[in-house]
Amino acid sequence: MIIICKRGATDEQIAHIEEAIRSWGLKPHTSRGVERAIIGIIGPEDVVREKPLEAFPGVESVTPVLKPYKLASYEFTQKRTVVDVRGVKIGDAQKVVLMAGPCSVESREQILEIARIVKKAGASVLRGGAFKPRTSPYTFQGLGKKGLELLAEARKATGLPVITELMDTKDTEVVEEYTDIIQIGARNMQNFSLLKEVGRCKKPVMLKRGLAATIKDVLLSAEYILNEGNMNVMLCERGIRTFETYTRNTLDLSAVPALKKESHLPVIVDPTHGAGHHDLIPAMALAAVASGADGIMVEVHNNPESALSDGEQSLLPEKFKALVAQMRAVAAAIGKQI
Amino acid sequence: MIIICKRGATDEQIAHIEEAIRSWGLKPHTSRGVERAIIGIIGPEDVVREKPLEAFPGVESVTPVLKPYKLASYEFTQKRTVVDVRGVKIGDAQKVVLMAGPCSVESREQILEIARIVKKAGASVLRGGAFKPRTSPYTFQGLGKKGLELLAEARKATGLPVITELMDTKDTEVVEEYTDIIQIGARNMQNFSLLKEVGRCKKPVMLKRGLAATIKDVLLSAEYILNEGNMNVMLCERGIRTFETYTRNTLDLSAVPALKKESHLPVIVDPTHGAGHHDLIPAMALAAVASGADGIMVEVHNNPESALSDGEQSLLPEKFKALVAQMRAVAAAIGKQI
Amino acid sequence: MIIICKRGATDEQIAHIEEAIRSWGLKPHTSRGVERAIIGIIGPEDVVREKPLEAFPGVESVTPVLKPYKLASYEFTQKRTVVDVRGVKIGDAQKVVLMAGPCSVESREQILEIARIVKKAGASVLRGGAFKPRTSPYTFQGLGKKGLELLAEARKATGLPVITELMDTKDTEVVEEYTDIIQIGARNMQNFSLLKEVGRCKKPVMLKRGLAATIKDVLLSAEYILNEGNMNVMLCERGIRTFETYTRNTLDLSAVPALKKESHLPVIVDPTHGAGHHDLIPAMALAAVASGADGIMVEVHNNPESALSDGEQSLLPEKFKALVAQMRAVAAAIGKQI
Amino acid sequence: MIIICKRGATDEQIAHIEEAIRSWGLKPHTSRGVERAIIGIIGPEDVVREKPLEAFPGVESVTPVLKPYKLASYEFTQKRTVVDVRGVKIGDAQKVVLMAGPCSVESREQILEIARIVKKAGASVLRGGAFKPRTSPYTFQGLGKKGLELLAEARKATGLPVITELMDTKDTEVVEEYTDIIQIGARNMQNFSLLKEVGRCKKPVMLKRGLAATIKDVLLSAEYILNEGNMNVMLCERGIRTFETYTRNTLDLSAVPALKKESHLPVIVDPTHGAGHHDLIPAMALAAVASGADGIMVEVHNNPESALSDGEQSLLPEKFKALVAQMRAVAAAIGKQI
Repeated sequence: MIIICKRGATDEQIAHIEEAIRSWGLKPHTSRGVERAIIGIIGPEDVVREKPLEAFPGVESVTPVLKPYKLASYEFTQKRTVVDVRGVKIGDAQKVVLMAGPCSVESREQILEIARIVKKAGASVLRGGAFKPRTSPYTFQGLGKKGLELLAEARKATGLPVITELMDTKDTEVVEEYTDIIQIGARNMQNFSLLKEVGRCKKPVMLKRGLAATIKDVLLSAEYILNEGNMNVMLCERGIRTFETYTRNTLDLSAVPALKKESHLPVIVDPTHGAGHHDLIPAMALAAVASGADGIMVEVHNNPESALSDGEQSLLPEKFKALVAQMRAVAAAIGKQI
Repeated sequence: MIIICKRGATDEQIAHIEEAIRSWGLKPHTSRGVERAIIGIIGPEDVVREKPLEAFPGVESVTPVLKPYKLASYEFTQKRTVVDVRGVKIGDAQKVVLMAGPCSVESREQILEIARIVKKAGASVLRGGAFKPRTSPYTFQGLGKKGLELLAEARKATGLPVITELMDTKDTEVVEEYTDIIQIGARNMQNFSLLKEVGRCKKPVMLKRGLAATIKDVLLSAEYILNEGNMNVMLCERGIRTFETYTRNTLDLSAVPALKKESHLPVIVDPTHGAGHHDLIPAMALAAVASGADGIMVEVHNNPESALSDGEQSLLPEKFKALVAQMRAVAAAIGKQI
Repeated sequence: MIIICKRGATDEQIAHIEEAIRSWGLKPHTSRGVERAIIGIIGPEDVVREKPLEAFPGVESVTPVLKPYKLASYEFTQKRTVVDVRGVKIGDAQKVVLMAGPCSVESREQILEIARIVKKAGASVLRGGAFKPRTSPYTFQGLGKKGLELLAEARKATGLPVITELMDTKDTEVVEEYTDIIQIGARNMQNFSLLKEVGRCKKPVMLKRGLAATIKDVLLSAEYILNEGNMNVMLCERGIRTFETYTRNTLDLSAVPALKKESHLPVIVDPTHGAGHHDLIPAMALAAVASGADGIMVEVHNNPESALSDGEQSLLPEKFKALVAQMRAVAAAIGKQI
Repeated sequence: MIIICKRGATDEQIAHIEEAIRSWGLKPHTSRGVERAIIGIIGPEDVVREKPLEAFPGVESVTPVLKPYKLASYEFTQKRTVVDVRGVKIGDAQKVVLMAGPCSVESREQILEIARIVKKAGASVLRGGAFKPRTSPYTFQGLGKKGLELLAEARKATGLPVITELMDTKDTEVVEEYTDIIQIGARNMQNFSLLKEVGRCKKPVMLKRGLAATIKDVLLSAEYILNEGNMNVMLCERGIRTFETYTRNTLDLSAVPALKKESHLPVIVDPTHGAGHHDLIPAMALAAVASGADGIMVEVHNNPESALSDGEQSLLPEKFKALVAQMRAVAAAIGKQI
């Protein structure tokens, strides 16, 4: 931690800061320039990270030297994490994994049919929401436990592992029982109680980036999960909220190389929620593959016009099939397989 | 709902849309202009709000006529809601209510002393966190139930009603037992399970605006609570996330007149989290009063240098006292009392 | 234009609006629903676009039916524009054009050497700044006219057409004399005097998206140029400003399919300014190709450590060469050539 | 400047950085911690500010110690600047100056009438646009020189000094001849050619914050003007672009205390463009006064329904008059006069 003092910080103020640092068991190292004094803190940065250094008179700003996350950092493992989901390897340097399915599980027929379609087209994980976080209380809230059972049935029918969202600590047990990957949605990315809870689960977790979350915030949220002992965490870029209204969100693909530089965790991209309009999704899915994503999650619906949620951003089966062919070509161009 | 068709939308496409509208029990009213057809939908807008109209071929865009929230809208009550918290009236047109206290409850001595200080200075509600949502898992997470007990003790000692945050549906019962107002934090503003849960509570709720939440999002989240039957809801502007890094967040004071125009619910402003630096807070607190806020929530600490959280943005007791005097003058200037 | 009236708008208010519409030579068409009246305006939308309809009592909101830009819209040409720059075709459906070079022209040796390097690596346009828009007045402001002369010399030596920025209407003549493409920088995207000026130039223009510009804003700025008669306009996505600070800006690749859907103009992507760190640029350049960009602009420097501007985000020659090979593979995967 | 090296930066990399620092005439001071080396640079920070330190292998991040602006900083003058405009003192600690008038000068009758109205209501500066920066080329672009002449006539009739916008370096002479304050609009805040130009003018300048400009960016743009010798600069907060669409922009009132802390220059607030709807403006104008602004600029129109620009956000004369009374009361509450 490096403290830059205010111009004109008094000797008393500086001595007071140095004393506080010593009282925390660390060592201050002060250099007085012509214009300002700078105090380096020697010793474990964790100890000072929590201290309100900017509350001390004479302090202008404080710069951390180390990253605030550890378990999530690439430095921690020095190699990429590969999450194994019933034999599907996510994070493997040679692979791009496709996760596809409807926004919501709506009925037995719907989920079974879509599961078969996406499997045939090349997906290796089936997505489908049973507990749905909806902006309005008057819209479809998901089938709940019934939806989980239908997902399990679709898994049995197709062999595809499934991913579904957990919204409430009260539902942890039932969701973990049925799903293969627990999804934490963007709106719960900083629901720290939920993060701790899934940190104690045995199933892998996919953590979606919040609408206002920085790269650092995402990694700190992942740290909550890792810190409870669950090391099978994937990160998911799904668009951030910006001033642009043409798209539903702004898909930040630079998060892919950024997260892969900072962390060992696999990175998935969800172009569906980022773009929000079905005709923009194929271009963004291809771009996501080219950016180095370990997986792509896409919403597919066999009858978008009657979908109970997200119909306007779901791909029709034939569009998805054509997109998979293109994604395969782009993946091959950068030395990967789908 | 008004559907604007694409230029070149075919007769078949338009007929298909009209048919769908009729199948939902509504009436399409189509006017064909020189360049485009426009389809008005006659009948209750709620029915179509969930339909994925943009998934229909030939549709360019869809414009709702009505607001997506009802119970939260000013139109619903046609008068301002006043929430009564142990005799403190929040939302009264002649009053500005001060809520003050430390970020976190840290110890018996700390909360009791600060409670006495803020009461003497003019606050009528005591704030203090027992369950703390912290960005990093390695920082102080709050005293939990012990913190709630200390808050209750401070209430007994001073007579001030208390407000504290609920983070997890599992803690609802214990938090509701001890607190007078349940706070939903910014990071949980779209934790819909939690919103439904507090909608079933008997205690008033203060809902903080999320970092990426629009005015409409805030009102839809309030709608979740109201829709479960709890009509004692307050909204709280506490800063949104923008590109500006000088301040911790960007306090959006225009949310005050905007929320009061759209809704009947009281609006509180928290300048502490918006500004994030103690020396910017007084100016923003005064501005918040002038903007018409029904209440102001400020973090006060008797020893910021040793605070376990938010020390850099807490006001010292004497600064808070001076600020209250100024807030009283500004409130008087617009015909209100503190 | 569709006017949604306030609930409770009076007959007088509605009549007053209708009268105003008629006074502008248009026809109002009012339908009164149970809750609200809606007034459609029949006739050319341009006439009403300028009218302050929201200033009329009783108006709740106003929805335009048509896009505010015409010449820039895909509907206008119904085919893609291809800009020909000394034989280099930009916007051709089978091609991706590479523009590369240093941030600034620094010296004769520098620009000649880099021009040869990027040409050999596969670039077909040479970039280089002579007039530099710099955030601080104390940093290198470019060589000015001398820089333009050196660019011309580099063009002569390599045959590469050049692109350079125009910042001031006073420099139009000299910049147009030397350059092949006039660049309008992000910070001048809404410098409307400059846009009109280049609209009267004969050379093609590349318009960079402003840091806070929506898709609609970009197209309206392009409309300024087109409206003066210069139809050779290219648009350039170069990152928008968001809350994320890890990257210099947030490269919004969804702008590529969005702009190509809305407009007939070619779309270039500049991943250098978007990412701002040399190690994130290759991934974003590949993603840009996959997203469908017509061209990619990258900063290359033979000695970034001594670059007078943007050294930290310039690629070394060997890195650029390796990147071109990868971009070629990705382009081929989607049926294009570099 | 403080350089934080990468974990694992080699001795050679560190030596190479140190050597470069020495070659620039400065002194490196390296301290090697357990995890990372940190290199402090001793000597004038200006010299290194331009160097691409992040382009050096082994560098993780670079932290400046000093602010990048000097002339604009409070440290430079150590007292507040008061700009004198024909006797109107802007920046005086006891005063709040009102600037009011129409968005655009539309006709002789209009500007003379509005000038008389705002003067009578309490304004001391008349605003009015002659050259108008409009998003669309198809909307009213201002009366140009004719507008300037009408403003001068209104000044003669009322004695009010005038403020109007300069958009193009080509118009500097004529605008400076007629106006008392030169306005640089938000969209030209980083039009550096224009900034240098007005830096050479003799008239005071009001610089509006750009839609995506940070506090630091605003001060660096002011630095461009100050650095050319014009010390009579005022800053103006007018709303930034965020994800919120309810308001036209998000008025960032925390910019008022922030700019006044960092700089000696007067700070004006324009609530009209921030809020964008006439019914939100009074609350924001009052909040701006309470936040400590030195001046408030408001759009007033005697006939908003027929205004050629910004009618929806202009106040009617009687509303403005009522607002001035309230602003006076709020100003008095914080020890100021209007």
